[in-house]
Amino acid sequence: MKTISILGATGSVGTQALTVISNNPEHFRLGSISIGSNIDRLEEILETFRPTLVSVGNDADRLALQGKYPHIEFTSGKQGLLDVATDDSDLLLTAIMGSIGLEPTLAAIEVGKDIALANKETLVAAGEIVMAKAKEKNVSIVPVDSEHSAIFQCLRGENRSEMKRIILTASGGSFRELSREALSDVTLEDALDHPNWSMGRKITIDSATMMNKGLEVIEAKWLFDAEVDQISTILHRESTIHSMVEFVDNSIMAQMGTPDMKTVIQFAFSHPDRLPTDDPMDLDALSQLNFSPMDLERFRMLALAYDAIRTGGTMPAVMNAANEYAVNRFLNGEISFLEIEEIVESRMHSHDPVKNPDLDTILYYDRLYKSDMR
Amino acid sequence: MKTISILGATGSVGTQALTVISNNPEHFRLGSISIGSNIDRLEEILETFRPTLVSVGNDADRLALQGKYPHIEFTSGKQGLLDVATDDSDLLLTAIMGSIGLEPTLAAIEVGKDIALANKETLVAAGEIVMAKAKEKNVSIVPVDSEHSAIFQCLRGENRSEMKRIILTASGGSFRELSREALSDVTLEDALDHPNWSMGRKITIDSATMMNKGLEVIEAKWLFDAEVDQISTILHRESTIHSMVEFVDNSIMAQMGTPDMKTVIQFAFSHPDRLPTDDPMDLDALSQLNFSPMDLERFRMLALAYDAIRTGGTMPAVMNAANEYAVNRFLNGEISFLEIEEIVESRMHSHDPVKNPDLDTILYYDRLYKSDMR
Repeated sequence: MKTISILGATGSVGTQALTVISNNPEHFRLGSISIGSNIDRLEEILETFRPTLVSVGNDADRLALQGKYPHIEFTSGKQGLLDVATDDSDLLLTAIMGSIGLEPTLAAIEVGKDIALANKETLVAAGEIVMAKAKEKNVSIVPVDSEHSAIFQCLRGENRSEMKRIILTASGGSFRELSREALSDVTLEDALDHPNWSMGRKITIDSATMMNKGLEVIEAKWLFDAEVDQISTILHRESTIHSMVEFVDNSIMAQMGTPDMKTVIQFAFSHPDRLPTDDPMDLDALSQLNFSPMDLERFRMLALAYDAIRTGGTMPAVMNAANEYAVNRFLNGEISFLEIEEIVESRMHSHDPVKNPDLDTILYYDRLYKSDMR
Repeated sequence: MKTISILGATGSVGTQALTVISNNPEHFRLGSISIGSNIDRLEEILETFRPTLVSVGNDADRLALQGKYPHIEFTSGKQGLLDVATDDSDLLLTAIMGSIGLEPTLAAIEVGKDIALANKETLVAAGEIVMAKAKEKNVSIVPVDSEHSAIFQCLRGENRSEMKRIILTASGGSFRELSREALSDVTLEDALDHPNWSMGRKITIDSATMMNKGLEVIEAKWLFDAEVDQISTILHRESTIHSMVEFVDNSIMAQMGTPDMKTVIQFAFSHPDRLPTDDPMDLDALSQLNFSPMDLERFRMLALAYDAIRTGGTMPAVMNAANEYAVNRFLNGEISFLEIEEIVESRMHSHDPVKNPDLDTILYYDRLYKSDMR
């Protein structure tokens, strides 16, 4: 029996993680959770599960909830995330969005807790620091996104030194059929309509801009100790093959399945074991898988991400912060779709990267480039 | 450095195995070899390699060669195969065709030698006996055909009890576009023209009849300790995915690569390591993979193989022997293509299977059903 705590329990991944826990009561038990401001959903969770500790976004909510549920311990704000991260559970699922996940993830690793990592911004901003700490504390970090989970599975039982190349597959997102010219007219509603995956709003926009694949390239570099040149991307519209690894003998291992995050979450929880799930892929329905080379002119955000990780230092954190800022403005209806990448590109251009940054330096630039900078 | 001996050194797999050995002189050295009657090719091999022991098909050849090459030890016939199988090398590649490979393979396992198994008829005829002996002697059997090598690789680092289903891919062979009606007119030359793989004559015909996939189903049952109902097949014309394994969590692992037996042979030699090879798959050229359900009416031989392994006992050995007999007659121009399956089906129909046969019983029926039976 593993006790699992969740940062971001009311989000898309958090909600599916709770389903995985209730589907496997003999294997998993909920520990603590953090949420932002979705109090209605939190109260539903409190009725079904019995979390020991609950962190909410602000102090007013905390006080109101503490009065209503005296037998549960409530906490809030940044300290609340750290309280959840360092509780006595076995595993922390970091399903919170954005670089705000970085400090609690590091705190959890510091206390020796295994990580199911859904917060890719953590590794993008501070991959070197996080992976070094995980190694020092002998903590296992199992990725909770379909691509990195696929790579992780392709590498099971393999010798990492025999890995030649990681091949991340990309569905192409909501606008894969559109030329760059056509992108100037797209709306927020169009961007939120992903063809294959049901995900949170930020990651759906990142998929449409292809920044999501860029973040994944950087995440893969750190998770699997790869050189940037060992990571390639390929368009695969069906999202059936979730990613691949090529070995020195040119054998390619691929992991496939239905596009369902619950399978990915469950694997991160059950690893190294696999647990039964319903809904196998219907092989009789498998008829055609399509692939095409990635066009870095068309998908300019992916090229920016490769630039950022090749530059290194604080640049990936700055790129990520600028992207969080820009996507947030797009989601608020303040800028157009193509302005997202204009903002990211110009902010990266204005940044003079610091080499080998410590955590405080990364957090400083993260805050700066996420702000209005006026 | 592994010393590798080869049964069937002048055949298609044997020839490619010698290339693998000469490509990796720091890892592999040739031990002994057996050949049939291809003395010209043998003399080329003797010039390049220095085998310690050479087995040839008949005694006349043995005497002539012994006179010409006094420093090499020659042997012949059935005893010759056993001599090669039980030499002091580390690994035996069984690249000989047909059930004649059974006794030398068992002899090699008996002396504790690891097996690179290209002779699938061995497991089809006597899988239970062979696998029990391998387990007893703690011998590893690594398959040398692309499908089972793929499955073997998909299972690396996995818990066998979490395997739900094996999915063998089948290109469909030379006649995959033809209806059953159209098969009555096909010629030997047509049948030997395989669309994806360059292989020996017998296995190319087996691919055209789909008996090859049937033999593979039975081989997979024994190699991977699977129930027959856990083994399915799917048509995949490109032969890019070499086979797949589905696990209890519905995750599917697939192994892919260029259709090149040298990669498969090298992996069986280098296992558990992987060694570099040239010619990676060109991912930019990867555009479309097609799949369709297997039609057991169209591919009657595959249905016969499922029947044989479900019946069990001596039936798979009889099916295999009848197939060897019929394919041999087809290769000699004595029967038509569709008569191959008529012969196999009628011989299986005439056989009253013996349960839990010992080796002598299997060999008796193997000889009987491989003969003219008049």
